[in-house]
Amino acid sequence: MFNRMADLPEREIVPGFRAKMIHTEHVTVAHWTVDAGAALPDHAHPHEQITMVQAGTFELTVNGETHVVEEGDYAVIPGQVRHSGKAITACRLVDVFYPTRDDYR
Amino acid sequence: MFNRMADLPEREIVPGFRAKMIHTEHVTVAHWTVDAGAALPDHAHPHEQITMVQAGTFELTVNGETHVVEEGDYAVIPGQVRHSGKAITACRLVDVFYPTRDDYR
Repeated sequence: MFNRMADLPEREIVPGFRAKMIHTEHVTVAHWTVDAGAALPDHAHPHEQITMVQAGTFELTVNGETHVVEEGDYAVIPGQVRHSGKAITACRLVDVFYPTRDDYR
Repeated sequence: MFNRMADLPEREIVPGFRAKMIHTEHVTVAHWTVDAGAALPDHAHPHEQITMVQAGTFELTVNGETHVVEEGDYAVIPGQVRHSGKAITACRLVDVFYPTRDDYR
């Protein structure tokens, strides 16, 4: 039950988007390190997602609405809602997904 | 869908444990600020919980097993498993709960 983030593998899911992921029975928590300029293509998934910005400046588009988000900002993205993003600067983001992202295991 | 942590109220749930909480359809994310010396009594709840340490030194007991945890450490606590804790220093912790902590709304 006790673990260290340092022991988690870091995986590059999309070019410039690297994550350490905690998968539990019900949720996935992804800690992202994002390179400046990296872009996440428009996509959707059945999972509910909370995106929280820990550092940096990120341009996030949800359901066609674009906001520039920074430390302390967060977005709640319901399942199946399309979203995309671009890192204006290097960023650290944390995503929480429900249910577990089995496709990221 | 776009929000700021700064706009969330901070609530003291247990003496010395103050949280800003994001409640969604399925999960709750609690960002805690904990005073040095504050203690969380032994308790359990049906919710699955992930506790992640962002800063400080915290003594966490889960199911009778005690660990001193620090930045980058995390614990996965299944539903109904008893746990307690004490802040050795001032701490910043993030908890993710499934399902939503309606008792904290």
